[in-house]
Amino acid sequence: MKELLDTMQKKQKKKVINNNPIGIFDSGFGGLTVMSAIHKGLPCENLIYFGDTAHIPYGAKSQNIVIKFSTEIASFLVKQQVKLIVIACNTATAFALPFLQKKFNVPIIGVIKPGAKAAVFASKNKKIGVIGTEGTINSKSYTKEINKFAKIKLHQQACPLFVPIVEEGLINSNFTNEIVQKYIQPLLNKKIDTLVLGCTHYTLLKEVIKKNIKEGITLIDSTQIISQEVKNILEEKKLLASKSKPNLKFYVSDNPLKFKKIGSRFFGKKITNIKKIELR
Amino acid sequence: MKELLDTMQKKQKKKVINNNPIGIFDSGFGGLTVMSAIHKGLPCENLIYFGDTAHIPYGAKSQNIVIKFSTEIASFLVKQQVKLIVIACNTATAFALPFLQKKFNVPIIGVIKPGAKAAVFASKNKKIGVIGTEGTINSKSYTKEINKFAKIKLHQQACPLFVPIVEEGLINSNFTNEIVQKYIQPLLNKKIDTLVLGCTHYTLLKEVIKKNIKEGITLIDSTQIISQEVKNILEEKKLLASKSKPNLKFYVSDNPLKFKKIGSRFFGKKITNIKKIELR
Repeated sequence: MKELLDTMQKKQKKKVINNNPIGIFDSGFGGLTVMSAIHKGLPCENLIYFGDTAHIPYGAKSQNIVIKFSTEIASFLVKQQVKLIVIACNTATAFALPFLQKKFNVPIIGVIKPGAKAAVFASKNKKIGVIGTEGTINSKSYTKEINKFAKIKLHQQACPLFVPIVEEGLINSNFTNEIVQKYIQPLLNKKIDTLVLGCTHYTLLKEVIKKNIKEGITLIDSTQIISQEVKNILEEKKLLASKSKPNLKFYVSDNPLKFKKIGSRFFGKKITNIKKIELR
Repeated sequence: MKELLDTMQKKQKKKVINNNPIGIFDSGFGGLTVMSAIHKGLPCENLIYFGDTAHIPYGAKSQNIVIKFSTEIASFLVKQQVKLIVIACNTATAFALPFLQKKFNVPIIGVIKPGAKAAVFASKNKKIGVIGTEGTINSKSYTKEINKFAKIKLHQQACPLFVPIVEEGLINSNFTNEIVQKYIQPLLNKKIDTLVLGCTHYTLLKEVIKKNIKEGITLIDSTQIISQEVKNILEEKKLLASKSKPNLKFYVSDNPLKFKKIGSRFFGKKITNIKKIELR
């Protein structure tokens, strides 16, 4: 009887383990902050990252072209047998998420919905600000997502200089503080009590942004929230892995050396195992 | 006899007229400053511009990928029967010019040689500074070109924030002045007497840069010089055109509406006749 129970338990355990990797992609480096959070929250998961450095940045490009790039990357990840795809880029989420969800069978999540949900939950005065790239802001994706939970008028601001400032490592320069002020002030004037960092790069600017907002304002960094979201889905679908030493693989479409150098800053530790591939 | 002379003159005139267009390309908008200068200097020429807005910017990408993009664009321009190609982008010139010159039969010129030549001619103390994108600076192309004329040690500085500042129209912000100072000061410390604007975007920052250098320093803007270079080549090869109302055509690989809006600022007047095409 004990043996039978053991075998059943083993089978059951086997059933809920899936060591296929999670696929994560972004236009370049920003998504590495998401990958880092997922790796911390789910340390037994194999992860594959794709940074589309040949087309970086997505932020100011059109919807059509971002859908094209995202589809090529998702196809590549599906071929690597990923069990879940995380679009770790707000612009690609804003432009391509519904399209990719229709096209592929694997579950696909983006960074906008978790951030929007958390913002609605956090805001007391129902005045929420969002900062992001031109593409994300113009897509009005945060407005659409937030309006699914509550009728709230969003105050949005595109901050096109933030990405190059972060990529150049100029976070602590005097002018960075001034640029942050310039972008944030119009939102503060609207008396927001919650501010969503609508771009994965902005995680690295969090301290400068904190200095420039009032104490009562809640900062929503979806990079942190997404890891919990991934965990919930994998648990629900019984897809959690159990690797004691998981594989972390990195693919880029251009310049692996630069990716190694800059990417490590975003990932929080040294990156190895980077391959350059051409998607077409 | 007079009739015979007239016919001969007409024939001769006909022989030296070639109304095929000049092809000009860049990763996006910057090259429009070059096109504008060529249009002013050679107002009878048909011009075709290609802005690779799907891959903008080239500045921080690798040599291989910039060669790939540039080859696709040059092939397209050759199909449009251009009589000369101007690479109106310092990064693409630095990375792809010799490769394209070998691959295509049509004459191809870049923006680096004319600027380098002018700098050597202008400098008295033989201390020359060059500012440009990461790609242009790391390629050391200005050093190579300048050393063809004279053994001069170049002082170089990559300025990665200049392109987004120009594209965002933030030229007159306070922090722009501060950022310009930050990038220029190390060159001033080297006592340069000549400063080359090694990126076609920087033409729009010329006034801010002028404010931040000493009076005796000569600014070299190759955008202005290139038009004379094109004229010399067309004259020499007897390829000058004679259109009283030349055609100006614009092609982009993404976002024609944005190109129209931002591009007009670079071109100095309204842009129409923009087509989006995919090169592969």
